Amino acid sequence: MTHETTPLSPAGTLYAGIDGGGTKCRAELYNADGKLLGAGIAGAANIARDSEIAKRSILDAVTAAVSEAQLPPESLGQIRACGGFAGANLPSAANIMRQWQHPFQSFDFSSDLHTALYGAHNGENGAVLVIGTGSCAAALVSGQLQQFGGHGFLLGDKGSGAWLGKQAVIHTLEAIDGIQQHGALAAAVQAHYQCHSATALVDKLNQAHPGVFGELCPLILQLANDGEASARALVAEGSTYLSAIARKALQNSGGKLVLTGGVAGALQRWLDTDIREQLSTSHYGPEWGAIMLYQNGGMPSHGN
Amino acid sequence: MTHETTPLSPAGTLYAGIDGGGTKCRAELYNADGKLLGAGIAGAANIARDSEIAKRSILDAVTAAVSEAQLPPESLGQIRACGGFAGANLPSAANIMRQWQHPFQSFDFSSDLHTALYGAHNGENGAVLVIGTGSCAAALVSGQLQQFGGHGFLLGDKGSGAWLGKQAVIHTLEAIDGIQQHGALAAAVQAHYQCHSATALVDKLNQAHPGVFGELCPLILQLANDGEASARALVAEGSTYLSAIARKALQNSGGKLVLTGGVAGALQRWLDTDIREQLSTSHYGPEWGAIMLYQNGGMPSHGN
Repeated sequence: MTHETTPLSPAGTLYAGIDGGGTKCRAELYNADGKLLGAGIAGAANIARDSEIAKRSILDAVTAAVSEAQLPPESLGQIRACGGFAGANLPSAANIMRQWQHPFQSFDFSSDLHTALYGAHNGENGAVLVIGTGSCAAALVSGQLQQFGGHGFLLGDKGSGAWLGKQAVIHTLEAIDGIQQHGALAAAVQAHYQCHSATALVDKLNQAHPGVFGELCPLILQLANDGEASARALVAEGSTYLSAIARKALQNSGGKLVLTGGVAGALQRWLDTDIREQLSTSHYGPEWGAIMLYQNGGMPSHGN
Repeated sequence: MTHETTPLSPAGTLYAGIDGGGTKCRAELYNADGKLLGAGIAGAANIARDSEIAKRSILDAVTAAVSEAQLPPESLGQIRACGGFAGANLPSAANIMRQWQHPFQSFDFSSDLHTALYGAHNGENGAVLVIGTGSCAAALVSGQLQQFGGHGFLLGDKGSGAWLGKQAVIHTLEAIDGIQQHGALAAAVQAHYQCHSATALVDKLNQAHPGVFGELCPLILQLANDGEASARALVAEGSTYLSAIARKALQNSGGKLVLTGGVAGALQRWLDTDIREQLSTSHYGPEWGAIMLYQNGGMPSHGN
C-alpha cells in the first residue's frame, strides 16, 4: 500500500512503523515513497512493564519485516524506526528507551495511544477507545493528546482483556472460598488454568503477566453472551467504565470515535448506545500513524 | 514472660518465635524454660513477594532479639527458629525457604496465619481474621488449618490496608480523568504522594510494594469515619468481604474469633454485627504460637 504521493525522504531511507502493546508488537516497513515492503509480528512491547522484553520484541518485529521485504539484515541501519508503545506515557519508562543503543538509523516513539489516534483520524481531531490486553481512551485536540484511563494492569485498564481475566480469577478464588456462588465462570477459569485449589491458582497467577489473564477473555465473553450472571456482571462493569472514558474523549475532541485493540470487536456490542452511535472506521493503522506522527514532528523525542 | 512450666528442651537451646508479614517481621527469643529473653523487629517478610528481603528481615529481627537479650551473636547457632510467614502457603515460596542456608540450629516455618491462629486459641479450635497490609481469615479445626482469602495483593487481600490504599488510588485516577467526583479522598491521595497528574501517580505506584499503598490507610479510615462518601464506600466494601471470610471461618471452627493485624483495631467497628459479637481476645501472640506449633510437630517442614 502507498499512503502518500510525495516521497517521505531521500531514496534509500526506510521507515518502520511500529505498534507495541502488552501482548504483541507489529512492525510495517516502508520505502521512501511510502510503499509497504513487509510486516512482522513479535511478542510484548509494554516498555513500562519490561523494557528489555520490549526492546527484543521491537527488534524481532522489525527484523521480521525486513526479512519479509527480502532485504538484507544490514538494512536495519537505514531504517528510521517510529513506534507507539504501551507505557511510553510514563517518564521513567520513556527515559530507559531514550538511552537504548538501537541498531536503527533513528528511533523515535510516543505512546501506542498517540500513534493509534494519529493514524485513525489522519491527524485530525477525534477519539479512540483501545480495548486490548489493556484499555484506554484518548482525544486528539488540535494536535494535542489527551488521555483517559490507560493506568496499567495494577491500577486501571478496566474492561480490558487482562482486567476481565483478573476479575474472573478473583471471582473464582472467592467462589472456592465459598463466599461467591461457584458457577460456570469459576468452573471455566479453574479448567483453563488446570488449578483446582485457591493456592494453586494464586501460585500460578500471582506474578503472571497481563497477557496470561487476557487468555480468559474469550471464555468470559462467551459466557456473558450466553447470559451467565457472573460473567455478565464483569463485562457490564468493564463496559460501563469503557463507555465513560470514551465519552470524555468524545466530549473533548468533538470528532468521531474509532475502536481498536484485540478485544474491541467482541466488546463493541456491550458499550453504551451513545458511544456505539459515534463509532467510525480508522483512516490508517497505528503503524502508519507512527510514521505520520514522526514526519509531522509530533513525537516527543523527535529530534530532526 | 514464661508460658510453660515444663522446659521446652535441654538447657542451652534457645527458641526464636518469628512473625513475618508484608510490612514487618518480629522475633521473640526464649530460653529452654520458656522465659522471654528479648525481642526484635525488622522489615518485610512476605516470602512469596521477595524471599531475599524476607531472609534478611528474619535474620535482622532474630539478631536484634539476641542483642536485646545481651547474648553474643554466635548464639544464632543455638537457636531453634520457628516462624510464621506471609506467602508460606505458596509451594514455590516455601520451597525457596526450605533451601535457605540459615545460620540457626534449625529453621521451621508455616504461614503467618497458621502460627497466629495456633497462638490465638492455644491450639484449640477457633478462628482468626487478620487485617494488616494483607487480609485473611482462618479456622483451626482439630489441628487442621483452613484458609479463606489471603490470596495476595494482586488477586485478593480485600479490606486490607494495601487493598484500601490501592482502591483509593484507582478512585483518584478516575477522579483525575473526570469520570468520578474529585472530592476529599482524591485530594488527600494526591497530597499524600505529592502527585498532581495521573501519569505521576501511576509512575510512582505502578511497581510499588503493598506497604506503600497501606500508607494511605489511616487517611482513608479517617475520611470514612468523617462520612466522606468515597472513603466510606471503600471501607464498607472491604468490611463486607472481611465479614464474609470471617463468617466462613467461624462456621467451620465453631469457636471464637480473634482479630489481629495492624489495621484490625481501626476496622473492627466496620465489621458486621454478627462477626463483632463473636470477637474474643488472643491467648498468645503469633511468635509464641510459632514455637508451640513447632513443639507440637504441627509445622509442615518440622523434621524432628
